[in-house]
Amino acid sequence: MCKICDAAPSGDLLSPKASHDAGRRGFLKGAAGLGAGAATVGLAANASAAAKAVSGNLTAARTLTGYGVPAGGGAVRAIPLERRALGPRDVAIETMYCGVCHSDIHTIRGEWGPVRGTTVPGHEIVGRVVGVGAQVTRFRVGDTAGVGCMVDSCGTCANCTADLEQYCLNGATWTYGSKADVPGGVTQGGWSQGVTVTEHFAIRMPQTGNLAAMAPLLCAGVTTFSPLHHWNIARGMRVGVVGIGGLGHLAVKLAAAEGADVTMFTTSQGKLADAATLGAKEAVLTGDAGAMQAHAGRYDLIISTIPESYAVAPYASLLALDGTLVSVGTPLELQNVMGGSLWGQRRSLASSLIGGIAETQRVIDYCGARRITADIEMIKPDQIEAAIARVKGKDVRYRFVIDLT
Amino acid sequence: MCKICDAAPSGDLLSPKASHDAGRRGFLKGAAGLGAGAATVGLAANASAAAKAVSGNLTAARTLTGYGVPAGGGAVRAIPLERRALGPRDVAIETMYCGVCHSDIHTIRGEWGPVRGTTVPGHEIVGRVVGVGAQVTRFRVGDTAGVGCMVDSCGTCANCTADLEQYCLNGATWTYGSKADVPGGVTQGGWSQGVTVTEHFAIRMPQTGNLAAMAPLLCAGVTTFSPLHHWNIARGMRVGVVGIGGLGHLAVKLAAAEGADVTMFTTSQGKLADAATLGAKEAVLTGDAGAMQAHAGRYDLIISTIPESYAVAPYASLLALDGTLVSVGTPLELQNVMGGSLWGQRRSLASSLIGGIAETQRVIDYCGARRITADIEMIKPDQIEAAIARVKGKDVRYRFVIDLT
Repeated sequence: MCKICDAAPSGDLLSPKASHDAGRRGFLKGAAGLGAGAATVGLAANASAAAKAVSGNLTAARTLTGYGVPAGGGAVRAIPLERRALGPRDVAIETMYCGVCHSDIHTIRGEWGPVRGTTVPGHEIVGRVVGVGAQVTRFRVGDTAGVGCMVDSCGTCANCTADLEQYCLNGATWTYGSKADVPGGVTQGGWSQGVTVTEHFAIRMPQTGNLAAMAPLLCAGVTTFSPLHHWNIARGMRVGVVGIGGLGHLAVKLAAAEGADVTMFTTSQGKLADAATLGAKEAVLTGDAGAMQAHAGRYDLIISTIPESYAVAPYASLLALDGTLVSVGTPLELQNVMGGSLWGQRRSLASSLIGGIAETQRVIDYCGARRITADIEMIKPDQIEAAIARVKGKDVRYRFVIDLT
Repeated sequence: MCKICDAAPSGDLLSPKASHDAGRRGFLKGAAGLGAGAATVGLAANASAAAKAVSGNLTAARTLTGYGVPAGGGAVRAIPLERRALGPRDVAIETMYCGVCHSDIHTIRGEWGPVRGTTVPGHEIVGRVVGVGAQVTRFRVGDTAGVGCMVDSCGTCANCTADLEQYCLNGATWTYGSKADVPGGVTQGGWSQGVTVTEHFAIRMPQTGNLAAMAPLLCAGVTTFSPLHHWNIARGMRVGVVGIGGLGHLAVKLAAAEGADVTMFTTSQGKLADAATLGAKEAVLTGDAGAMQAHAGRYDLIISTIPESYAVAPYASLLALDGTLVSVGTPLELQNVMGGSLWGQRRSLASSLIGGIAETQRVIDYCGARRITADIEMIKPDQIEAAIARVKGKDVRYRFVIDLT
């Protein structure tokens, strides 16, 4: 998540202080005492089973278990986590699956800045709706819902009204690590038993299918889908994907789904053989100078998913006239950007950040219709530390997903 | 000029070895002995006066005086310079005026790589046509002609056939410093009494008007005109121009001519007052952090003309959603490019290189119709060194032009 965008949220649309329905205390008794008002909280009758699943954690502002790190960082551990009372426009979700995004790791390892407080990451969340506010129209208890990287935005600025909440001019509220009017004052993510978000930021998911493998679409999927389509992917377009991890393997699948001529660029010899399965026509080892040279000047669009500061020059030179390299993996410095390499073929270096909520829904619908999912390896919460080590060692194909059922 | 594009030219279109017309030796006797063939060299009768002006330098391959530096660099001095015999598609031009581009200075000062041989720079050339080859159709002796940054390209690649010779996939032949089938084996530029180019690379200039002040349009003009139009400048668009020198002041004029809302960004307090005259609505001192912050996120398009390696971050943050910063002033490293700054508003960093020949003609016609010229200070050849020092000290408004008449 981009620290530079993390302005204090306006909070106008968050209603954590909205009243509870005193007659429906079951799941929602945590709402008590947090406010009063005309709004009522709906909880459909069929939520009882779901509510039971988390009933042990229900407190004044329902207390769940999260998995994260304390201020300053450290190993991932179980952390008690308060969720706000359900507001009239809120959807409460019991987490089933949550992906392990490289940005989660950067954040809790302090690689994108110090860990300033308790941090429970996770923004590839799929779960069951266990409660809906009275004004919620798109979800019912029992539905499957997803939450990606955002849980709020001002809703009124030019970007929000253009369905680009991720670029909210007043600062989007990220799923974790953003200051917000929630218990603890900072949002906490989906490596936890449940989340509560305003309806606008909940994504409708299929009721069935491989929901665990769809979870990564909510960040890795939309983060690659969005630039592919913004930069006009088309049949036959030569597309390069640099870095074949969680984001990259989905970029290959999503570009191939549009009929593009896709080349994978990877540091991992062992991943070359996956090219055909993922949908790439070619695979190039980035350490093979001869192969890189042979592919110079060929690509109309390159999606780089490299998750750390890196030298851009070797990839910029792969671009054809008017080609664009979109770097989506890191907020850190893009090094070795040579003016001469860009002007040599009027190349562009760009970046984009996830996608808006409507676009996130579009990714889910698009992938649902085409049966596109992430290649995942499922883990339990006590395996997160081991999984992080394997991500760092590029030893995952291609996304760890935590099973929180 | 971009060193990375400077591949050995194909030479297919250059015909320095084409035969001369033995009966028309006046200006063209330098052609003798360089080849034989069916092509004839035309020299209209009215060229005699023009030919006389350079007659003292006419030798086997006509010898002129250039102003440049020896291998390894040094102070600018007069250097004897051979020009090739006129080929059937060639236009010989007697230089009247030639601009002093910052890239000329970079080149002869070794700032873009060592000075590998005698170098006569200059690629903003306006002069009189003193000879035309037999197959030349667009020029007659006595016409005014211009030469910009290129004198040849393969003419057959996808980019050349798309009127983008500057991006020739086989390597354009630059006006100076390119290996070519010319006397000395390397092209030499317009800080000289004359140049000979193939017709395709000669630009038609008005016969009258302030020709000296039009010379800078051939590089500085097209270098800024091209990205403004490629990135869709439009009335009311917020355009920033960073660096108000030879390129920058023309960028302001050209953007204002399209009705854009232009802001100048300069390091020079003394240039702020020129904003209105140039056509900018605002002027900002880049060293004024408060003013820079106040303009953050405002611009759809920024043309940066900074002529050296620089930190991009302060300018990237000026861009609005989907804004593009086009850096046209340097092939060197664009430093401090932050992924987070780009992804924060889906910004792009790009670069473009001059313009194609058709586009260069378009700039001349466009500016001729609108009476747009560069603000120049005229110098004599013996003032070049002093002028260079003043350019380095940002003490020029806004382009030195050498009077070679």
